[in-house]
Amino acid sequence: MKARRMPRVEGNFIRNWRYNRVPLLQIRWCQLRSICADLLLQRLGPGGIDALGKPLNRGLYDCIRGAILEGDLAPDTRLPPSRDLAAEMKLSRNTVMFAYEQLLAEGYVRARIGSGTFVASTAPEAYLNVARSTPRQAPAAAMPGLSPRGARLLAEASASSTQWGAFMPGVPDVTRFPHRRFAQISARLWRQPRPDWLSYGAGGGLPALCEAVAAHLRVARSVRCESDQILITEGIHQAIDLVVRLLGSPGDRAWVEEPGYWGIRSVLQMNGIGMMARPVDAEGLTLPIQRERRGGGSRARQDAGPPRFIFVTPSHQYPLGVVMSLARRRALLEFARQHGSWIVEDDYDSEFRFSGQPIPSLQGMEQDAPVIYIGTFSKTLYPGLRMGYVVVPRTLAGAFQRGHGELYRAGHLMTQAAVAELMQSGEYAAHIRRMRLLYAKRRSILARLIERYLGADALHEYGSNAGLHLVLRLPDSSDDAAIAEAARQRGIIVRPVSRYFLGKPAQRGLLLGYACVPEENIGPAFEVLLACVLEARRRS
Amino acid sequence: MKARRMPRVEGNFIRNWRYNRVPLLQIRWCQLRSICADLLLQRLGPGGIDALGKPLNRGLYDCIRGAILEGDLAPDTRLPPSRDLAAEMKLSRNTVMFAYEQLLAEGYVRARIGSGTFVASTAPEAYLNVARSTPRQAPAAAMPGLSPRGARLLAEASASSTQWGAFMPGVPDVTRFPHRRFAQISARLWRQPRPDWLSYGAGGGLPALCEAVAAHLRVARSVRCESDQILITEGIHQAIDLVVRLLGSPGDRAWVEEPGYWGIRSVLQMNGIGMMARPVDAEGLTLPIQRERRGGGSRARQDAGPPRFIFVTPSHQYPLGVVMSLARRRALLEFARQHGSWIVEDDYDSEFRFSGQPIPSLQGMEQDAPVIYIGTFSKTLYPGLRMGYVVVPRTLAGAFQRGHGELYRAGHLMTQAAVAELMQSGEYAAHIRRMRLLYAKRRSILARLIERYLGADALHEYGSNAGLHLVLRLPDSSDDAAIAEAARQRGIIVRPVSRYFLGKPAQRGLLLGYACVPEENIGPAFEVLLACVLEARRRS
Repeated sequence: MKARRMPRVEGNFIRNWRYNRVPLLQIRWCQLRSICADLLLQRLGPGGIDALGKPLNRGLYDCIRGAILEGDLAPDTRLPPSRDLAAEMKLSRNTVMFAYEQLLAEGYVRARIGSGTFVASTAPEAYLNVARSTPRQAPAAAMPGLSPRGARLLAEASASSTQWGAFMPGVPDVTRFPHRRFAQISARLWRQPRPDWLSYGAGGGLPALCEAVAAHLRVARSVRCESDQILITEGIHQAIDLVVRLLGSPGDRAWVEEPGYWGIRSVLQMNGIGMMARPVDAEGLTLPIQRERRGGGSRARQDAGPPRFIFVTPSHQYPLGVVMSLARRRALLEFARQHGSWIVEDDYDSEFRFSGQPIPSLQGMEQDAPVIYIGTFSKTLYPGLRMGYVVVPRTLAGAFQRGHGELYRAGHLMTQAAVAELMQSGEYAAHIRRMRLLYAKRRSILARLIERYLGADALHEYGSNAGLHLVLRLPDSSDDAAIAEAARQRGIIVRPVSRYFLGKPAQRGLLLGYACVPEENIGPAFEVLLACVLEARRRS
Repeated sequence: MKARRMPRVEGNFIRNWRYNRVPLLQIRWCQLRSICADLLLQRLGPGGIDALGKPLNRGLYDCIRGAILEGDLAPDTRLPPSRDLAAEMKLSRNTVMFAYEQLLAEGYVRARIGSGTFVASTAPEAYLNVARSTPRQAPAAAMPGLSPRGARLLAEASASSTQWGAFMPGVPDVTRFPHRRFAQISARLWRQPRPDWLSYGAGGGLPALCEAVAAHLRVARSVRCESDQILITEGIHQAIDLVVRLLGSPGDRAWVEEPGYWGIRSVLQMNGIGMMARPVDAEGLTLPIQRERRGGGSRARQDAGPPRFIFVTPSHQYPLGVVMSLARRRALLEFARQHGSWIVEDDYDSEFRFSGQPIPSLQGMEQDAPVIYIGTFSKTLYPGLRMGYVVVPRTLAGAFQRGHGELYRAGHLMTQAAVAELMQSGEYAAHIRRMRLLYAKRRSILARLIERYLGADALHEYGSNAGLHLVLRLPDSSDDAAIAEAARQRGIIVRPVSRYFLGKPAQRGLLLGYACVPEENIGPAFEVLLACVLEARRRS
């Protein structure tokens, strides 16, 4: 057998010898048969099964089992019929059938009547390491039982399955998380856990953590707050859920940035809040032009009504990266005061600014600003922590704490205590400083590659030297979703900018996350992406 | 000074020498002054400040600071004006002022202009140990900014601040949680954390934990499920939130047990689900009487319409404790099938049955039953873990996983891995067995005391020998809420049964939780409660 990269079956794809991922359906059946057989024969080595010195069926069983446990045969991969595999591997059919039956009895494979033999979703020993098989997804509308709003949620669902690697946007480098130190702190707390930290929590979070967060925000983000204005939530989603439930009613409207973070759409829709997309320009979210009022307001404005909520990301607009200008901030605050709107400031990655002055928060610009400030530890610590915070005006603090306890039954106080200590000891700030340097380096590597191969125009002009991702600009005529799909098939994850538009996409581009990509991988990954981009260019 | 119990100021109450809690407002100002002074003088000891050998203001500073750190002066307690304290303690006013200023500068106290000096909400050193001060709670309707649904949520909010001790219902004995073992497992996992466990999770939870939960439920609760039907949620609240969002629409109706768990009301109301209370009898939730249909159904039933959801606790009705009979279960399943309703089976503490056979789940009674089964680790591990699970029918599994990821951005995979390992190693089952023995013992102590001093009739006849609480029956004419309040003032926490009714309470009684009360404390705590009950009897 020629020396070549072992083909690897991954679900519905084969990663072939060029290290491209090719959809399985495109492979002829005889090729599939031989690919699986190749895989198994390679595992056995030059001598084949005979050389193992075991009974043939035992040898084959070991071989397939090993392939499953090591991930070469991914969950839900279909194994060839016994007759075909026997022919390919020059074994008797009984041998193969016996091996299949052993694997079936022990749970490594499952048989579906009329369909064949499939690698099990969870292999018995390796279940801790095997990725979850996605249950067959019937079209949402056809699901018996889903309500209209449930079906609509799923139809518009954007959250993809967990992924990691170039160029997943929004994901920090979790391999740099100070896990030993965190484990030490946790271990010490767990030596003598306080009963009231294990029991149900009062709404709002551990006072120590609220104190630490308040202190940090006052200094780092110029937020005006005391610790009793802070609530600890289950990430930003819960924060937004709580805000719209306590301050909004079904039928209220919210302004969202266009393009903007899709994650809040589901939460708003579920709570009956209507969304209106406001375009983003070089200064941030645009406000409607103020017509002069002479004895009557604009009819259009009267019909629409002012929004109850205005969701903005002023420090680093998601996804385009623009920083809201000072003038626009003042205008926005003025607008909100006039119309009784609540501004929800989502400050999701503001710690990571690589040049220039830190941008102070919108909330801190004025006394008693009508701003709810929300933030998260997902980008600074790790996303799986699911810990965020909300800063509410003092008059609403008690209401929010009680509402939080009532709706969500607060808890996680042990973890919150560990995070509080991390902050108190100064290690949180030190970690952010280290990551800031690291992300700045990675950003500059990627940015230089883009400039060199695609030109300086390819970097979106709104982008600022900050954050965990940048935007690669594409011509308005491109199909960025198709390019993203092509890249995905080759193992590179990017997000098309068009997907972040509520309405018709006004821009095209790709979000490239660099934070979770080691420096040495940026080049090779970019090479693959470049190929996709240039191919698309040639085709158009 | 006579030997007497040191008075303890707790927020707006003083715990006086009879160990009763007396509202502060009832104490005359001169009494307050002397109580604080007494407290401080007792701390100093017989020799007074002079004996400390320090400058007087330093001695007073130390004294007050010590009182704050040890909790004798609770957060937000108002300190007497310097002039008054000086008079009481026979010091010069300057001495007291100097001490106050030191405390102010270091953050132990806060000054409010025109109001006085108050102990800070969080003292600098002790912030990890000081209870959170509840922000002043203005009436919900008066809150600027709350929407009508927000105001209504708060007006009906039932979740009390975190409490621990006799006789808090629903709280397990968290001091017995195998924290060392859990810490060991966590520490090992944290030595080499997997990046995809730190990153965002795919909806639904860690496959390993879903596998372990499925295996456990199949055996322990006769639930029909495979691991891909399991979702891990943030406690039961999130499970119910997800179910009603995906399967229900605003305007749908839900049947809830009467009396029943108040915790789901907020979630249902927020999601626009109307509630109808169905009384509970000796067999469980009652169903409407089936009228014979001869050419037309009952008009009343046509107006009401069948419910979309039916929430039941069939293994151990909350709060009365009745076990749903076999006949009633079949009738309920028949009803749900006929009318297209979803039964939501809340199996919150089914592990703790102390006599008789384990009660199999409703979900497992029939193939493809229209039942969503939900459970929680709150009672078996610890409530602050905030980890529950949902078993959905196979056809909906994919939809639920995606919906879960979309609405809540799943995470916590490290913690889930630790719990999975605890289950896999058999320690989870062993822990439950130990706790079952312990709770059985505590229950029997309390039950015997009730029988002895109040008669066997005082134990609710619906109650079964199971769970973390029992119900003390009271005559229909009693005011159980008033008795509960009287007990609370004496430091004993009980819940009045009348609070669990949506409508007019049909029964009166008190929920007594015994799980978190050490055996030696049950007697003394019951004595206090008995006094309250007997006093109420004498008055009526």
